[in-house]
Amino acid sequence: MRYEESKIEGRNPVIEAFRSGKTVDKLFVLDGCQDGPIHTILREAKKRDTMVHFVSKERLDQMSQTKHHQGVIAVCAAYAYAQVEDILKLAREKGEDPFIILLDGIEDPHNLGAILRTANLAGAHGIIIPKNRAVGLTPTVAKVSAGAINYTPVARVTNMAAAIESLKKEGLWFACADMDGELMYRQNLKGPIGLVIGNEGSGVSRLVKEKCDFTISVPMKGDIDSLNASVAAGVLAYEIVRQRLG
Amino acid sequence: MRYEESKIEGRNPVIEAFRSGKTVDKLFVLDGCQDGPIHTILREAKKRDTMVHFVSKERLDQMSQTKHHQGVIAVCAAYAYAQVEDILKLAREKGEDPFIILLDGIEDPHNLGAILRTANLAGAHGIIIPKNRAVGLTPTVAKVSAGAINYTPVARVTNMAAAIESLKKEGLWFACADMDGELMYRQNLKGPIGLVIGNEGSGVSRLVKEKCDFTISVPMKGDIDSLNASVAAGVLAYEIVRQRLG
Repeated sequence: MRYEESKIEGRNPVIEAFRSGKTVDKLFVLDGCQDGPIHTILREAKKRDTMVHFVSKERLDQMSQTKHHQGVIAVCAAYAYAQVEDILKLAREKGEDPFIILLDGIEDPHNLGAILRTANLAGAHGIIIPKNRAVGLTPTVAKVSAGAINYTPVARVTNMAAAIESLKKEGLWFACADMDGELMYRQNLKGPIGLVIGNEGSGVSRLVKEKCDFTISVPMKGDIDSLNASVAAGVLAYEIVRQRLG
Repeated sequence: MRYEESKIEGRNPVIEAFRSGKTVDKLFVLDGCQDGPIHTILREAKKRDTMVHFVSKERLDQMSQTKHHQGVIAVCAAYAYAQVEDILKLAREKGEDPFIILLDGIEDPHNLGAILRTANLAGAHGIIIPKNRAVGLTPTVAKVSAGAINYTPVARVTNMAAAIESLKKEGLWFACADMDGELMYRQNLKGPIGLVIGNEGSGVSRLVKEKCDFTISVPMKGDIDSLNASVAAGVLAYEIVRQRLG
């Protein structure tokens, strides 16, 4: 797979992108723009739950690569997203208990890319990310993932708490990464599991944390606050690997 | 070590620098910036009689090396490299078996910064890096380390193989991270230990590997070749933590 350009600029190209079923991560529209084609674009965006940002002309000019944005720029996924069901199916096909990593608001593409590598090598069946306030499958993520993006499915959901609720019905237990949580060695991490990792700065959001069954933490004996998010995800994911091997 | 001026950029790194007792020569703050973290920084600066300059965004952008100054840049003396002896001394002071992470050619400042965080929280007593063909303690490393650079000593050596030889005389055993090595759970990682991590692309060099006592690997069941270097370092370092706790 090659890295595709991820911005689509101009009215017709953006309408085309929506109609062809392309996944638009984010839509940037000139603030105050009200004409017919823009309305059509906004209608398509609404249908697909695409996040819309209304921005100034300066901002659009700055983002634009073609310099002919006509008041609209769509940022597209370089790679296709999977469905949550695809992840469960992969686990079934392998005859394994599902192991899913849920990222509640990872913003840095280097972290998402590194976590994709970890998910692939730790034998996780997929990753779930939220549609809003999080990085998607950008070309940088694809590059940093060192190929893992081609193997490990990534699903995007509107509501992470609701996704957890529905996966609980499939038998999964949810472990919330939490610096003040229970030491990871003391929790039983065997069986169908979802590992929830929070945002780089603020951790797992309250609503998502409340849906989890228990917390897990990495032992910390140093002076600073926390591990890098992708390192923490790696250490926790491999504690799951270790318990599953044992 | 030669003297060089170093810049610490961004709110948390600057607060961390003050709190860890680092000497800030000059503080540059975005003129008109009034929020909580900036007030905290100004309070710390006042406590220590640090000279504060209120400057324009253009001036900060110009000074910035990371391009993520968040309205504040502290100018400090360069981060001082420690001596290998300082690392051993730290272990003695804590009454612990030495635990040192040796990086044989890490080039990406994000990886070195993340590994510094891991070293600090996993209770390693220090890091050893080579003088050549590796990233040093740059401002980006400082920022990514989230303060760990102020606590965890980093020594620089001309010859990594010679450093290992001399540390063996101090009773350390050396574990070489190697994808084709022995599974980490099967090695005894207790006692005085040096964990050797290789370059992002080429791994541990042959000469250094030959000096090591044994190899260790992370279990890998995926499709791609390897974990991100800082994630691999984290997973291996925490296997040492686990065995030491057990």
